[in-house]
Amino acid sequence: MRLHFVLAESALEPVPEEIRRSPAVASDSRRRGVEPSRILLDRSFHHAAMERLEEGEKRGRPDLVHAALLSLTGTPLFLDGRMKLYVHTCQDIVLEIKEGTRVPKSYFRFRGLAEKLLAERPTEGLVKVYQAGVRELKRRIGPDLTIGLSMQGAPGTAEEVGRALAAADRPCVLVGGFPRGHFMPGTVRSADRLMRIHPRPLEAHVVSARVAYEVERASEMMND
Amino acid sequence: MRLHFVLAESALEPVPEEIRRSPAVASDSRRRGVEPSRILLDRSFHHAAMERLEEGEKRGRPDLVHAALLSLTGTPLFLDGRMKLYVHTCQDIVLEIKEGTRVPKSYFRFRGLAEKLLAERPTEGLVKVYQAGVRELKRRIGPDLTIGLSMQGAPGTAEEVGRALAAADRPCVLVGGFPRGHFMPGTVRSADRLMRIHPRPLEAHVVSARVAYEVERASEMMND
Repeated sequence: MRLHFVLAESALEPVPEEIRRSPAVASDSRRRGVEPSRILLDRSFHHAAMERLEEGEKRGRPDLVHAALLSLTGTPLFLDGRMKLYVHTCQDIVLEIKEGTRVPKSYFRFRGLAEKLLAERPTEGLVKVYQAGVRELKRRIGPDLTIGLSMQGAPGTAEEVGRALAAADRPCVLVGGFPRGHFMPGTVRSADRLMRIHPRPLEAHVVSARVAYEVERASEMMND
Repeated sequence: MRLHFVLAESALEPVPEEIRRSPAVASDSRRRGVEPSRILLDRSFHHAAMERLEEGEKRGRPDLVHAALLSLTGTPLFLDGRMKLYVHTCQDIVLEIKEGTRVPKSYFRFRGLAEKLLAERPTEGLVKVYQAGVRELKRRIGPDLTIGLSMQGAPGTAEEVGRALAAADRPCVLVGGFPRGHFMPGTVRSADRLMRIHPRPLEAHVVSARVAYEVERASEMMND
């Protein structure tokens, strides 16, 4: 069993064209010496300019994507090469992360790396970058079971999700990589089952950590 | 049951006196417009200067402390007011975080807040700051059970740790808030039991997330 973990519709993208000339982005660009087209959209810095963006409340949270990645790459499941990670962004770009790859723990280094990857889109190496929606990504992965985690899903526990995933041959899980709101209809349709693991909305890194842990527990029990 | 969660000997401190005049710290201070005495020691920026520091390999990782705090403050246990958090630093400073307090998700905001708290040491509010070693902190908390998580502990599972803690009236758990190495002897002596939850060393945020989750699960089962 190898788990294919997708952070879906993640709030990770370069500053979009329409707000590149805004004061917040211009000053950020000067201060850092980085082209506006390359800077990551970040609500901490570009809040005022983001009001103009469509679906703005779901976007511009690279810190949240970073936290979710750290919660996953620190797990034995990932370190042992039994989890493959995909960051699918709200722009339908996928960062496919090879098993065991080290993701920078410092946010500064992560930001620099993400900016480079999104600008250069390498087609090979530890992180491959390509254009794909969730449906196309799922076709590439070819899972026999896909579970989406969502507040709109059926109530269950992380343990149930972990057991179902660990029992599959090629399981895939979708967790939203955005701060609020819901999956797009196309993402919902890509899931065989939609489940929620808690009555209250939890952050992506908390959900990710729990699901990875429960898949680990369930697969250990099956191997005993 | 309310869990008292201590990140012990955490790698969070202002740049120490002996390296405040080093080139890395001076340029960091100029760039940010912050006094060297207030800047957080951070291996990402001060690596070269840190070679001179005693126990340097355990220090200067505010990113790691931030990741551990996020993994805890995002849990229902914390959000529901059933976990009190303490960041005990390698300098025997304690940041006591009130139940339910929001910790900034952006690393930049967290850094600014931590620098302010360590410089101003507020004695009341959402975060109280005071001088105390682990032993003194434990005396203040007054736990009936203290479990330390350490690679030098007895092998067990996060589930066992969660059950033992949830069964206590006033449980306390100690997780190392540093990147490598072991607890100091005084910290080890403060624990009633020392346990390890995995054969390989795991990062503080991974251990924290798992223990908090298992305490939650165990206390729900007890309430059913």
